[in-house]
Amino acid sequence: MSATIPDKPRIAIIGSGALGCYYGARLVKAGNDVHFLVRTGRAAIMARGIRVKTPTERFHLKKVQTHATTTEIGPCDLVIVSVKATANSALAKLLPPLMGPDTIVLTLQNGLGVEEPVAEVVGGEHVLGAICFIGSTRTAPGVINCSFPGLVMLGEFGRPAQARTREVAKLFETAGVKCEAQDNLEELRWKKLVWNVPFNGLAIAAGGITTDVIMADEGLRLLARRLMEEILEAAAKFGHAIPRTFMDLQFDRTAKLGKYEPSSLIDYHAGRAIELEEIWGEPVRRAKSVGVPVPRLETLYWLIKRLLAARKTKKKAR
Amino acid sequence: MSATIPDKPRIAIIGSGALGCYYGARLVKAGNDVHFLVRTGRAAIMARGIRVKTPTERFHLKKVQTHATTTEIGPCDLVIVSVKATANSALAKLLPPLMGPDTIVLTLQNGLGVEEPVAEVVGGEHVLGAICFIGSTRTAPGVINCSFPGLVMLGEFGRPAQARTREVAKLFETAGVKCEAQDNLEELRWKKLVWNVPFNGLAIAAGGITTDVIMADEGLRLLARRLMEEILEAAAKFGHAIPRTFMDLQFDRTAKLGKYEPSSLIDYHAGRAIELEEIWGEPVRRAKSVGVPVPRLETLYWLIKRLLAARKTKKKAR
Repeated sequence: MSATIPDKPRIAIIGSGALGCYYGARLVKAGNDVHFLVRTGRAAIMARGIRVKTPTERFHLKKVQTHATTTEIGPCDLVIVSVKATANSALAKLLPPLMGPDTIVLTLQNGLGVEEPVAEVVGGEHVLGAICFIGSTRTAPGVINCSFPGLVMLGEFGRPAQARTREVAKLFETAGVKCEAQDNLEELRWKKLVWNVPFNGLAIAAGGITTDVIMADEGLRLLARRLMEEILEAAAKFGHAIPRTFMDLQFDRTAKLGKYEPSSLIDYHAGRAIELEEIWGEPVRRAKSVGVPVPRLETLYWLIKRLLAARKTKKKAR
Repeated sequence: MSATIPDKPRIAIIGSGALGCYYGARLVKAGNDVHFLVRTGRAAIMARGIRVKTPTERFHLKKVQTHATTTEIGPCDLVIVSVKATANSALAKLLPPLMGPDTIVLTLQNGLGVEEPVAEVVGGEHVLGAICFIGSTRTAPGVINCSFPGLVMLGEFGRPAQARTREVAKLFETAGVKCEAQDNLEELRWKKLVWNVPFNGLAIAAGGITTDVIMADEGLRLLARRLMEEILEAAAKFGHAIPRTFMDLQFDRTAKLGKYEPSSLIDYHAGRAIELEEIWGEPVRRAKSVGVPVPRLETLYWLIKRLLAARKTKKKAR
């Protein structure tokens, strides 16, 4: 189960949102055999293909292979899961038809505990995870505006990088996506939380504010740091020694972002699903499982959970 | 400075909102010489007096003594401070003209640290504080709807009840207000926080929700309890041993309130000032001063502070 992948692998993209379309389109452009599972807006993508705009280029794939079911796609060498974690209950039905003995399933989902639901369906030895540093929005079905192509960090679920990990990374690199194979995916996920937990969280919980407002508010800035410290302490208990200077780096980086709207806040305002459990809930549960108190993180989790529940009720009432 | 008060004392009411008008009107009705400082709606009160409605009675004082300044009122035996703590910066000018050698200044304000600003102006030996359990709203200047007359608990600032404390309590009782002189005002204030901190706080921070929503939300209910525990621990360090069963009592009581909108949420929605520092900020500072960590309380404080700041900005923008 660490077999190498073929030269022109058969690839399935599960979820044709901003990430799925962007990486999928890049892989198509590089000559790969890419199959998109498209549930909403399929007619539009069939008629007009995929258009991608980045700060440095534009391209248009007039024809892409779209499918309504994964049975129609059949077994692949690489399956890229780019639906939101909130849609994970669908994986048990979606993934099996795509699996062969050496199929790699790569999840691009955000937060903690996103490899596990995939592993439950296909077996952990098939699973890779990636952390995507990217700014990308889908303005219409198949129309992708990528403001910041960024970087993908790739790793194996529960083990260091293998030959296949580096091959998948190379596949992305060849397709024009900066990509690194990493030895400790789990640690990377904790590190990403160091920013995501406070900034995505406070942006929502403090009334829908951008990062500059958090940075200018003495209390919230201190609270962001305390939340980061809770994450660091929990991560340390799992053997991930994130240096304290990593926190300063987050603040320096955030100061440069200016009036930045974190992705969860964009989704919150747009009424879209938010990775509540993966970004806030799962870290709370893991921290508690090793006896690390995370009172601020838990407070934030419960408040956001309630705010999201209220949003659902409002939606129903409409 | 523990002189008794005269039979028909001269009383000033500073702040003619729901509380000031209600207690003031009761004291007028009982035959006392009561002077109201009225800043907004004075013409209405001069023309139409004060109307009070309670669950069991209605009365109308056609003529009340109103004043625009405290200099006009002059020295009194009892001064009742019923402006919000958020207006305390005005006390340094308002109080001195009302003071005689034995004047009692009784503050009805909510939260922690409300006697101190009064004491700074008039001297601590003049100061009494009260905790008002009351449901009362001002529907128009001088028009008071008291849905729940409740109870006043009265105490000295920094010392046990004196002869004068019991006399002021008797003055209220004679006027038809249930009133008890208590020996430990500070402890009562901490006890009131046990409810106010979580329920007023979460009602605002979790998106403007009533207490039944908090009670039905597993996370928020647990958070409310954790907040109470933080208060209890801090209070204990100041020598106030509040039993843990007091927390259960709060939940039992709140369950019976049904769809109840805490006063701070009412004020928040109405765009009125909220005792941010007295209910959340001061307890945080006091807890920290004795080395008790209150992470959830502090988180709540910072979030509410930001939400209030955003409200101010919106107001200005209008």
